[in-house]
Amino acid sequence: MPDVVSHLVDAFGADVVSVGPIDERFHGDWSGVARTSPLAVILPRTTDEVATALRICHAHGQPVVPQGGLTGLAGGATPRCGDIAISMERMSAIEELDAAAGTVTVQAGAVLQTVQEAAVAAGWQLAYDLGARGSCQIGGNLATNAGGNRVIRFGMAREQVLGLEVVLADGTVLRSLTKMLKNNAGYDLKQLFIGSEGTLGIITRAVLRLQPLHRSRSTALLAVPSFDAVVAFLRHAQRTAGGVTAYEVMWPEFYAYMTAELAVGRPLPVDDSFVVLIETSGDDPEHDPQRFETMLAEAVERGLLSDAVIAASERDSRRFWELREAEPIDRLPSVVNFDVSLAIGDLAEFAAECEQLIRRRWPDAHVFVYGHVGDSNLHISLSVGRIEESVLHEIDDLVYGVVRRWHGSVSAEHGIGTLKRDYLSVTRSAEELDVMRRIKAALDPAGIMNPTKVLP
Amino acid sequence: MPDVVSHLVDAFGADVVSVGPIDERFHGDWSGVARTSPLAVILPRTTDEVATALRICHAHGQPVVPQGGLTGLAGGATPRCGDIAISMERMSAIEELDAAAGTVTVQAGAVLQTVQEAAVAAGWQLAYDLGARGSCQIGGNLATNAGGNRVIRFGMAREQVLGLEVVLADGTVLRSLTKMLKNNAGYDLKQLFIGSEGTLGIITRAVLRLQPLHRSRSTALLAVPSFDAVVAFLRHAQRTAGGVTAYEVMWPEFYAYMTAELAVGRPLPVDDSFVVLIETSGDDPEHDPQRFETMLAEAVERGLLSDAVIAASERDSRRFWELREAEPIDRLPSVVNFDVSLAIGDLAEFAAECEQLIRRRWPDAHVFVYGHVGDSNLHISLSVGRIEESVLHEIDDLVYGVVRRWHGSVSAEHGIGTLKRDYLSVTRSAEELDVMRRIKAALDPAGIMNPTKVLP
Repeated sequence: MPDVVSHLVDAFGADVVSVGPIDERFHGDWSGVARTSPLAVILPRTTDEVATALRICHAHGQPVVPQGGLTGLAGGATPRCGDIAISMERMSAIEELDAAAGTVTVQAGAVLQTVQEAAVAAGWQLAYDLGARGSCQIGGNLATNAGGNRVIRFGMAREQVLGLEVVLADGTVLRSLTKMLKNNAGYDLKQLFIGSEGTLGIITRAVLRLQPLHRSRSTALLAVPSFDAVVAFLRHAQRTAGGVTAYEVMWPEFYAYMTAELAVGRPLPVDDSFVVLIETSGDDPEHDPQRFETMLAEAVERGLLSDAVIAASERDSRRFWELREAEPIDRLPSVVNFDVSLAIGDLAEFAAECEQLIRRRWPDAHVFVYGHVGDSNLHISLSVGRIEESVLHEIDDLVYGVVRRWHGSVSAEHGIGTLKRDYLSVTRSAEELDVMRRIKAALDPAGIMNPTKVLP
Repeated sequence: MPDVVSHLVDAFGADVVSVGPIDERFHGDWSGVARTSPLAVILPRTTDEVATALRICHAHGQPVVPQGGLTGLAGGATPRCGDIAISMERMSAIEELDAAAGTVTVQAGAVLQTVQEAAVAAGWQLAYDLGARGSCQIGGNLATNAGGNRVIRFGMAREQVLGLEVVLADGTVLRSLTKMLKNNAGYDLKQLFIGSEGTLGIITRAVLRLQPLHRSRSTALLAVPSFDAVVAFLRHAQRTAGGVTAYEVMWPEFYAYMTAELAVGRPLPVDDSFVVLIETSGDDPEHDPQRFETMLAEAVERGLLSDAVIAASERDSRRFWELREAEPIDRLPSVVNFDVSLAIGDLAEFAAECEQLIRRRWPDAHVFVYGHVGDSNLHISLSVGRIEESVLHEIDDLVYGVVRRWHGSVSAEHGIGTLKRDYLSVTRSAEELDVMRRIKAALDPAGIMNPTKVLP
């Protein structure tokens, strides 16, 4: 047993430090990055245990990889051979929900859905939501600055964080668990750890801001004749129906495929339109549905919409969302998924350029374009048939080349991990990468925190 | 003429580098920190000129102090003897307003009000607003992470920033002028510069997010019988009237003084109530006023309000705001202002404790409590008579001692500068201050960027 592992076992016992054959769930995420058993897994129960574990690892120059719910899709939590994983799953408590302040204080391993439910039970809501809500953890959500379906109204996970507790590489505990909405006392250090994917420290606890629970929700599926109309309708909706909480757009090929593959059928009989899934949320259950209909009617009159179907029930709404959730794509061979962002007005030309380049090389490719257009975030899923690693790189090079020309981001919401590390320079300048390295060296001089992740 | 100044004059000419008697406006802000003439003032017209200026200063180990509109109240932009000021006032252009994306790209010296007006003319609004709007500059707003009146709905200045261009101490330009709402590609470096008061670099340009322009606004002045009711009514309003865009609270002594001193009179005939100024903004001009009234009527029924007066005109609304703006306080001798925050539920007890301690020492003191309670931010203005410097410190020690016990912040929105530097440790731990120093050393190893500001 390596020296560092003996030290850890001595400090904590076998209940906290798992050695020997390591349970497969700690071998990594499902991004496609090669899953690997870590040397050991530490399962701390307190912030102090995290600090002690890091102090020991630091003294031995032992690399560690922090792990949350492992629902990331960029390889950020996947161990390399010889890494020690620190799983936060035992630190899963909701420590306090302050119903007056509208805040919830949680441990990093708390599962998102558990926190969401606790908030709703207290008349509040947590403002972000992800498909992985049933297993992803708050610590991982913050370490990756998770996005999701309601960013358009409430911002990313970053914007929900009021206070944060982080353990640095050398075991120093940085604690600022405040409930204040405003705090301009010195550098806002928490921002550094949010979105840095465990390369600067391990998030152990957080205070999250809650939002008042909405009392009405309206959902519709709409046919929109052009991308210009997609943008114009979004602005119309935001100006006249208030709180747009989701604005998801499906390109025609995507909609055609989903409606053919799924049992939900074809709620709108269209072939060559953009299909928009819009959701608004409000506080006036009596009048909001009428306002929503009026807003849609005005848009039809202005030529922004060619057809619309309003969800009459929760079941309808779920049907619409099922289309957008895009599950059937996973049945295609060797699907490659992109999660890019660029200025909203450029999205359609960008997507057309990607599609054209893909089809020139692979005429029969499936090219599915969809995503959180209201947030300037597009997903592209490609399948060109069963492929080798080298072809995967060719596809990456092609799409990220277009992202570079449009000054876009190679990761809107999923993070960099190892999967996109070699493309980080598409979005960030040499000067920015240099400053990131300086920050990394300042906070983790021995380089033990999740090495080789994020930074090329 | 010192070597560094000759170098700067050689590089730019006398039009850009002002030496000799320096115009008084560059001597500092109005925080009370001693105003001092800088050695020279540089007035760059481009980012390249800022970079060249910093490169020359860096080579000479010459300290610089960045200056915006000088409306800060913490001494952050006040030069020390021998500092060179870099004023951003000539870089005042609005470079682009993208009406599709809802973004505005501005130079750091653009005046807030100019940008606000450009946004409104394009059917959008900039989401933050300050009393100093007519002279404060965007660069200064971001360097101090300005707050203001609408944080409750849209967050601080930080939350409005999509892209930022910063020049580092050595002249390196860090440019990320993106319009994307989501960008998880690597560390979010812009967050470091926002709120660090020019100690890590000079902000030269920014891309700000705009919000759809509201189409209705309702304002009322309310008498609230207890602080518990102040909090309960806020939640009631947020849940039933949607977009609360301001929630300002005046303690009884504050309201009594303002109504006695100002020509606006006494809109509510109350003596011992909290007085709340609420503003909601919406998108339904036809129904929003009725909803607002219904919301208030329900609150009266629930005992949360004892009296209410709704603004029937823009003029009424301005009258209500005039009360809150607290101008007469400045007529009192040696006024000391605090800008603190703590969990909303603790504000009343905190204020009572401060008042009690002040009165024990100065029985006839004026103790005015008011502020952005919806943001957990309180202002306390004290006047104990004409005082010496040593008494000022005594007052600071007393109030910040209470802030420490309540785990509050010594600066909710005005920043640290030099004025609150010695109290930063009230809010931030030794570990946090150490990390701030590490970040400072990593980005400004020669220590020329606004030295002695923020960090003790």
